[in-house]
Amino acid sequence: MASMPTDLPKMQYRFLGRSGLQVSAISLGGWLTYGGHVDEDGTYACLRAAYDAGINFFDCAEGYQDGESERVMGRAIKKFGWKRNDVVVSTKIYWGAAHGTNPVNNTGLSRKHILEGLASSLTRLQLPYVDLVYAHRPDRHTPIEETVRAFNHLINTGQALYWGTSEWRADEIARAHGVAERLGLIAPLMEQPQYNMLVRDRVESEYALLVKEYGMGITSFSPLKAGVLTGKYLDGIPADSRLGASKDKWVKGVREGEGNEKWVKEMEVVKKLGPVAERLGTDRAGLALAWVLKNEAISSAITGASRPEQVWRSVRALEAVEKLTMEVVEEIEGILGNKPDEIVMRF
Amino acid sequence: MASMPTDLPKMQYRFLGRSGLQVSAISLGGWLTYGGHVDEDGTYACLRAAYDAGINFFDCAEGYQDGESERVMGRAIKKFGWKRNDVVVSTKIYWGAAHGTNPVNNTGLSRKHILEGLASSLTRLQLPYVDLVYAHRPDRHTPIEETVRAFNHLINTGQALYWGTSEWRADEIARAHGVAERLGLIAPLMEQPQYNMLVRDRVESEYALLVKEYGMGITSFSPLKAGVLTGKYLDGIPADSRLGASKDKWVKGVREGEGNEKWVKEMEVVKKLGPVAERLGTDRAGLALAWVLKNEAISSAITGASRPEQVWRSVRALEAVEKLTMEVVEEIEGILGNKPDEIVMRF
Amino acid sequence: MASMPTDLPKMQYRFLGRSGLQVSAISLGGWLTYGGHVDEDGTYACLRAAYDAGINFFDCAEGYQDGESERVMGRAIKKFGWKRNDVVVSTKIYWGAAHGTNPVNNTGLSRKHILEGLASSLTRLQLPYVDLVYAHRPDRHTPIEETVRAFNHLINTGQALYWGTSEWRADEIARAHGVAERLGLIAPLMEQPQYNMLVRDRVESEYALLVKEYGMGITSFSPLKAGVLTGKYLDGIPADSRLGASKDKWVKGVREGEGNEKWVKEMEVVKKLGPVAERLGTDRAGLALAWVLKNEAISSAITGASRPEQVWRSVRALEAVEKLTMEVVEEIEGILGNKPDEIVMRF
Amino acid sequence: MASMPTDLPKMQYRFLGRSGLQVSAISLGGWLTYGGHVDEDGTYACLRAAYDAGINFFDCAEGYQDGESERVMGRAIKKFGWKRNDVVVSTKIYWGAAHGTNPVNNTGLSRKHILEGLASSLTRLQLPYVDLVYAHRPDRHTPIEETVRAFNHLINTGQALYWGTSEWRADEIARAHGVAERLGLIAPLMEQPQYNMLVRDRVESEYALLVKEYGMGITSFSPLKAGVLTGKYLDGIPADSRLGASKDKWVKGVREGEGNEKWVKEMEVVKKLGPVAERLGTDRAGLALAWVLKNEAISSAITGASRPEQVWRSVRALEAVEKLTMEVVEEIEGILGNKPDEIVMRF
Repeated sequence: MASMPTDLPKMQYRFLGRSGLQVSAISLGGWLTYGGHVDEDGTYACLRAAYDAGINFFDCAEGYQDGESERVMGRAIKKFGWKRNDVVVSTKIYWGAAHGTNPVNNTGLSRKHILEGLASSLTRLQLPYVDLVYAHRPDRHTPIEETVRAFNHLINTGQALYWGTSEWRADEIARAHGVAERLGLIAPLMEQPQYNMLVRDRVESEYALLVKEYGMGITSFSPLKAGVLTGKYLDGIPADSRLGASKDKWVKGVREGEGNEKWVKEMEVVKKLGPVAERLGTDRAGLALAWVLKNEAISSAITGASRPEQVWRSVRALEAVEKLTMEVVEEIEGILGNKPDEIVMRF
Repeated sequence: MASMPTDLPKMQYRFLGRSGLQVSAISLGGWLTYGGHVDEDGTYACLRAAYDAGINFFDCAEGYQDGESERVMGRAIKKFGWKRNDVVVSTKIYWGAAHGTNPVNNTGLSRKHILEGLASSLTRLQLPYVDLVYAHRPDRHTPIEETVRAFNHLINTGQALYWGTSEWRADEIARAHGVAERLGLIAPLMEQPQYNMLVRDRVESEYALLVKEYGMGITSFSPLKAGVLTGKYLDGIPADSRLGASKDKWVKGVREGEGNEKWVKEMEVVKKLGPVAERLGTDRAGLALAWVLKNEAISSAITGASRPEQVWRSVRALEAVEKLTMEVVEEIEGILGNKPDEIVMRF
Repeated sequence: MASMPTDLPKMQYRFLGRSGLQVSAISLGGWLTYGGHVDEDGTYACLRAAYDAGINFFDCAEGYQDGESERVMGRAIKKFGWKRNDVVVSTKIYWGAAHGTNPVNNTGLSRKHILEGLASSLTRLQLPYVDLVYAHRPDRHTPIEETVRAFNHLINTGQALYWGTSEWRADEIARAHGVAERLGLIAPLMEQPQYNMLVRDRVESEYALLVKEYGMGITSFSPLKAGVLTGKYLDGIPADSRLGASKDKWVKGVREGEGNEKWVKEMEVVKKLGPVAERLGTDRAGLALAWVLKNEAISSAITGASRPEQVWRSVRALEAVEKLTMEVVEEIEGILGNKPDEIVMRF
Repeated sequence: MASMPTDLPKMQYRFLGRSGLQVSAISLGGWLTYGGHVDEDGTYACLRAAYDAGINFFDCAEGYQDGESERVMGRAIKKFGWKRNDVVVSTKIYWGAAHGTNPVNNTGLSRKHILEGLASSLTRLQLPYVDLVYAHRPDRHTPIEETVRAFNHLINTGQALYWGTSEWRADEIARAHGVAERLGLIAPLMEQPQYNMLVRDRVESEYALLVKEYGMGITSFSPLKAGVLTGKYLDGIPADSRLGASKDKWVKGVREGEGNEKWVKEMEVVKKLGPVAERLGTDRAGLALAWVLKNEAISSAITGASRPEQVWRSVRALEAVEKLTMEVVEEIEGILGNKPDEIVMRF
């Protein structure tokens, strides 16, 4: 295993929305990797590299590899003997992991699944509490009040410190805040949406007023859109590549777009981003990640890594952020051509 | 023991009122049976048959056989090693079970009995929490606020996930909701009343507006009215039959009606239901249970069983529900002759 | 016109529920009479007789004779120059009175009709405010919160001092209290139901817990059940009698019961009440009214009168109230045979 | 002036969301017409025709023709002597009308403009109150709490009966509800968005969960999309047509789309709708309006009319609604090709 480069930029920490909690601008997530195609040692290596590079936020979910992601990350944290107060560990409840023979109450956002789900997660993580717990999707069969109360129960019993949402609609998040305010409960603090150069409407437009009004923090995932923004699929998706082979539903959705009109347009964009990246002394991946971090609404960009080198590469994107001057940003907007309309403040 | 029929219909799950919790449309209750006239092995056989048929909701009460019902069901759950998230277990507090020499505070809905009662129930069930806890009767000596607060305490301390009422008056349930809303507490989610072809006013008329307004779920008991609707007492109540021999106060009440005007009228109704049931390919019991399930306000119909065959017979009622077309329902109304007046919406 | 008897008993005043307002135990209502079959002078005579006998509560409704009842009572109050603080005037909103060509919003309990309805009533009554305003029926198309808020608006703008309900279900009244408590608004203070020897379930059973819990006052109507309890229909309903000729829907309902099983049973009861009344030195009407007043939950019994003599006769019922000893009440229960079950306080 | 056809269908009334107020399914709005290109007599003729056809809801805004629309509708209501409780009159505050020399506080949703704006509107309308008042656009410079409080002030002072929004984002409406619930204030009851066959996402998708959760009523405008859906612009927009000549910003926006890709696609859709309409015994306009009314979330479709004949034509659309069977609706979906994705309830 290569040792950590000595010239890595210093990690940056950002407040998670309007809270007092600080998370590293770049974080490491277990989705698709840990407990999945990356083996135990590989996982340990990545986590260690991340920690040593100043990353303090490690993101999990009960639904990642049916709980395996939490198990291996839990073992890693234990093995390294990290101080609990040095790391911010998250998980997400919705998809279930501990399925028995009758799965009807093992998913969703009922009080039952939220309580039983997190209890299982904590067992897998070998932790008494997580820092952050997310509602991994909206559940429209469950009244929002039931969900808000259940996450507050987790906080009140010390099993989680903050709670948030992932891929909820803006009006649902607003309703959760309304319920929390009416009942004097703790409202969701952060949202975890996809956010990258190709998918930006939700963060920049749909969530814009909420972020401003409620001070929510955004911990975004997929800054490279499953690798598409690295440029490695410009000549097609090899069957044995991550994007080509994944069985993950979301990744398959990206893959299946290959060749259609939208895909072709995106490839043109990716192509044009290459020279810009080069000029800034980085590559497409570095540029894409830096572009995400340039957005101050993003508290942390969750990255994935199969090898320590990938962690380091992600951390280097911090250097590129500063090179994203107003002019460069405008140039990139010209290439992307997908800037959301500004929200009219007063007509 | 006979093995499970291969042609049982697939279990149906319903949301418990306006909550995110799903309960099987048919559930299994321990009243009169488990801990009572059904022995330990018979109890295990019934619970196993129910679980294997997709029943996920098991109903208990501290007052059933003075706690024995909870004890044996607790042993069964433990013995089978069912995952906690695969089952919905309920109990009810009011009548007491662990009576000492001075019983004054061992019943009712004081904070003292609610807390002490559920603690005892959980010990008997060998469970850290129940999913549902009911106030088994109204207690008009205890202020509703005290009761609402005590059930919220059970939820807040993780000993129960949802709470409800059993055989409360509609105005008392409305008062509990008013208190809960004023204080920002959790309101009762479900009611457990008797409901069957012969006793329907409370569910269809008294509770109608509440169900609509507060989204309460109904988990009804006695779909066959102590067996009366099966037709087995058409020629009288044998002294050694369940209805003839039971010492349960409620069952005795039914038995004592034998021969009076109301009883005679009911027997005529039961007689006429036979041919309808036959035509639908079921028997009186199947028809009676299907009729209960046809009502969408019913989240779950709690059934009793002394042998696995009775469980399977109940589950088969699901097939008959679909045969209850509007025409058949109208025909049955003609036989029952007890349809409650529709509630005037605007005079 | 005969002058007031000098030996009339002193009027009794009762608090209207748990409020500081006192109403005469016997009150005078305009239903069916004023603005209807009683002419202007007759109306003035009755009101004057009532006032002079100590009656301070005069009951109206927008729906009585399409507003005429309010108009004539308004003129009477003005003509007599009664001090505003000497009388308690009520009206009720629901049925509408000022119908134009499009009546869709002229009835019910929408905010629009409640505000517009009372404004019209006050114009007809020539008063700046009524003391009491009732929701004359429940309106299940209008959310109870809208109705509670609208009646509070009437109170906040000084157009009414207290508000109540008439013939609502107990659970609806409880919901109105819940809404009012949650929002810090004024809850309904009184209910106006039918109450007499033949119709008593609602007051004595359905409302019993509410009265106790919320301190509601009952202002009951029809103490003689449209004259049935006076005994004047023992030999049939003459076509030209009040009960025989009225076009009022409610009165017609009573009339149409003539001859059926229930009617026959009621006539037997009425017959048997005669000797009891005689023994107490009154007649059936006096006994029936005294029986209503004996119930302490009744803040006021609303009576009707076509002539001053009828007012005086009603007032004399106060003398009979004291003669209703425990023994006599028991004897009457034996005759009535309709005593509601006592409500179980703790099972 | 032609007299009202004798065979017009009976008007239908719908509750405005979860309220007790009933509005005619078809309503008449003053936008672009009254106070604009329709003269005084023409306005009177249209209002009279609408009223006689059972339309009870008349829609205005301070911003329509700089207040002229309110003035002429106010004169009409006065002239006809309509009873106040027979009509539902609305206005909207945002754009201002009574601009002086310093317009900074004459628009938007500050407390100052809401109070001053409605006061001016009521003067122009010669009415003491409107039934409905809308926030005509969102104002993101004003805290939602200030706006919610100001509209409640209008209701509390009797100047309006209900308040709502127009073209707000779903998350902003949810925030208004949250604020109202927290403070015990009256929340917005209705939204007024554009809704027609070509523009449906907002109503059917963005607002869907809100309508369900908060019981909001939708009063939609532009059922024919500025006439585009009538088919009269299939061969181009004549310069002297309404669409060709209007100076209204919104209408100009529609016009300027002529010839672009979206326009061409829409014309194809409009062409294909012709034969469907014919088959149902109506024309494109009738079909388009019926399609809007088929959606039960729509409390009222606001139509415009320059002549009484146009009012009658709109009312006739009610006949077509019943002909929109499931099959026809599916056929139309095939032509429109813009059905929003169904909202996932549980993933």
